[in-house]
Amino acid sequence: MKTINIGIIGLGTVGSGVVRILQQHHDDFMRDQDVDLRLVAAASRDASQAETLGITQIFCDDGNAVVNNPEVDIVIELVGGVTFAKELVFAALNAGKSVVTANKALIAAHGHELMELAAHKGVEIAFEASVGGGIPIIGPLRHTLAGNQIRSIIGIVNGTTNYMLTRMRENSLDYAEALKEAQAKGFAEADPTADIEGFDAAAKIAILATIAFNTDVRLDQVSVEGISRLSALDLDYAGEMGYCIKLLAIANRTSDGIDIRVHPAMVPLAHPLASVNGVFNAIYVVGDAVGDTMFFGEGAGSGPAASSVVGDLIEVGRHLAYRESITQPVWDTESLPIKPIDELETSYYLRLSVPDRPGVLATTAQIFAQHNVSIYSMVQPGTHASSTELVCVTHVARESDMLAALAEIRAANVVLSEPVLIRVQGDAI
Amino acid sequence: MKTINIGIIGLGTVGSGVVRILQQHHDDFMRDQDVDLRLVAAASRDASQAETLGITQIFCDDGNAVVNNPEVDIVIELVGGVTFAKELVFAALNAGKSVVTANKALIAAHGHELMELAAHKGVEIAFEASVGGGIPIIGPLRHTLAGNQIRSIIGIVNGTTNYMLTRMRENSLDYAEALKEAQAKGFAEADPTADIEGFDAAAKIAILATIAFNTDVRLDQVSVEGISRLSALDLDYAGEMGYCIKLLAIANRTSDGIDIRVHPAMVPLAHPLASVNGVFNAIYVVGDAVGDTMFFGEGAGSGPAASSVVGDLIEVGRHLAYRESITQPVWDTESLPIKPIDELETSYYLRLSVPDRPGVLATTAQIFAQHNVSIYSMVQPGTHASSTELVCVTHVARESDMLAALAEIRAANVVLSEPVLIRVQGDAI
Repeated sequence: MKTINIGIIGLGTVGSGVVRILQQHHDDFMRDQDVDLRLVAAASRDASQAETLGITQIFCDDGNAVVNNPEVDIVIELVGGVTFAKELVFAALNAGKSVVTANKALIAAHGHELMELAAHKGVEIAFEASVGGGIPIIGPLRHTLAGNQIRSIIGIVNGTTNYMLTRMRENSLDYAEALKEAQAKGFAEADPTADIEGFDAAAKIAILATIAFNTDVRLDQVSVEGISRLSALDLDYAGEMGYCIKLLAIANRTSDGIDIRVHPAMVPLAHPLASVNGVFNAIYVVGDAVGDTMFFGEGAGSGPAASSVVGDLIEVGRHLAYRESITQPVWDTESLPIKPIDELETSYYLRLSVPDRPGVLATTAQIFAQHNVSIYSMVQPGTHASSTELVCVTHVARESDMLAALAEIRAANVVLSEPVLIRVQGDAI
Repeated sequence: MKTINIGIIGLGTVGSGVVRILQQHHDDFMRDQDVDLRLVAAASRDASQAETLGITQIFCDDGNAVVNNPEVDIVIELVGGVTFAKELVFAALNAGKSVVTANKALIAAHGHELMELAAHKGVEIAFEASVGGGIPIIGPLRHTLAGNQIRSIIGIVNGTTNYMLTRMRENSLDYAEALKEAQAKGFAEADPTADIEGFDAAAKIAILATIAFNTDVRLDQVSVEGISRLSALDLDYAGEMGYCIKLLAIANRTSDGIDIRVHPAMVPLAHPLASVNGVFNAIYVVGDAVGDTMFFGEGAGSGPAASSVVGDLIEVGRHLAYRESITQPVWDTESLPIKPIDELETSYYLRLSVPDRPGVLATTAQIFAQHNVSIYSMVQPGTHASSTELVCVTHVARESDMLAALAEIRAANVVLSEPVLIRVQGDAI
């Protein structure tokens, strides 16, 4: 049996989970996978983590020492971010070591360079844990579904916001209350910006789109809108109309290029994604042969993310142990354009706070009509003193038309506060 | 770029789908996968299929000729069954060719021998399409989830019966009507025995259990019960109690061995499997690190099954083209015992048709008590002339006790027809 030596950098939530799995299942992996995966080096900023895990004898406080350790065959990078982690991963690949990482930001920003460098050095970089925590998705897209032209990926890939939206809907919490609760439970960080503004989901959909469409999609090419402008009111109205609101990460292959975006969306209650609640994640994939599929599971946490890291580790370890040459995974073999979000065609949910006086509805309706936005349904669910809520759902309209109509409505002084606009996830799913 | 030559045997629904994908995406696979997958030989009993597909120039009517064709590197076996298909697959492996198959019966009956022979010959046998149609499940279990000890697999893996149960519930069709409709729509075969009696699902769960638990589980070790004794009445009562009835294929790793069975089960409506309707399949997997995951998609049909066959084909083709030695997939590295179904502990739904006279309820309750079966709830939903329905749900009881109680109830002449017993899928999921 061959021995593969492993160095790990980062012993936080995920790193500790990885070490525990390797400790608990080391002998199982020897028996079942025919490879001796031996942890020989570990680094983190906090030595007490190594003590808790009982690995002080292989611990050091310098990630570079792990990368430069001549014994180490595979480096597990769980530092996160695109500064120190980037240095470590490039250094490891340059030193001819394979890398396993959960770093979505790094892959979304530098995937192309990293894959090229790995190919050049004849090693591997694996990152199943970067998207969807424990959910197998990168592996299935690359292998089992490789016979398909992937048409569409629609993911609930951020557990923090999905937890908040679930609580807002089920318990009528408002946004601020839901955020506070998520922070108290450890589901949201002290600075929750990356999650609630959609950047975390954007990095993940950029990675999935790159793999599914074989074209390089970078984080800065994703149109992003978070959930911070939603209120419990919108979730209630959505429910009355047979929808729930989810933060969706969407990538569609269209004849005009890749349509890629993250935003809150109205999801029909009968859709499989509508019942994905709490911190669970799910990724809905449509392929030309396979049809509709969905992958569901825990998107974060020590166990699930560590499961994906160790899955990659076993795979890369077996490759190193048992084959002469590395089968290069596919990266961006095509160069597809990104479709500007202005050109999106979808229907919209729109909530306007308008003064309770005659003529407002007529003015609003006229402005929409002038911009080719056709109203499918409109209700005035409640009146509060001098204002009233106007809730509309439109037929399919062009995003640029909708935005122009909204600009004119703002200018016409018929709205009392910033309109709430939510795209409806319709026929596409 | 390397060329891999492919021979296909069987040009029915799945085979035609495979040929069409290869025709349509051949150039995409060259660009994206760096391998030229060339179909060089095809066989089936019906030459007209080859004409429809435009491949008469590579067609012959003898599967053996495809296996013996010296040009062929990979044989795709889509004949099905365990007679001629078995000969073909063993002959191909013996000739040093890799095999891709969708043949669940063959893998469930001869997996061990086939894996050993492939290992001995340094080739591969791949069978993702044998379970769950287009749903990636064997790949994820083998790779992404390999870091887990898998605790439980619960699958809806037979589209025919799931379609029938969905129609029975949603439209109150009775069993015979649902079967007739499924046959008319092509979802059930003229002889539907393998589907409705659970044998198809049993082969699939035997394969999944073998891979998930690394232990050889054969078809004849699976306890099997089909759906033919269910009536629309049971689906109605289930709905009233907050359940739906699904034909589940279940495999649990327990301290007493592998608990493996196929039977109709009451599934709580809030469970993700409860909303898997029509011909869709889903496989729920619980691992010690990953927690709960679910894989959902179309379980049958030309496109989905062909998607999995072509996924395997690309994988095996890339292995052949780009690496020197084959990384052996894991098969039965452990020898775990099978837990007898008599020892199962679960709660039960039970419907008894009893005469409408005093004392019947007392007699029944007493018999249950004598056999340690404790009633959780009991209702008498309706009275029809001289008989009445008695519907109970029990606390967790031992299967052997429940069967003994039922035998005594039959002997006591308090039931007018054969009792309907359905296991409740409880805490385990």
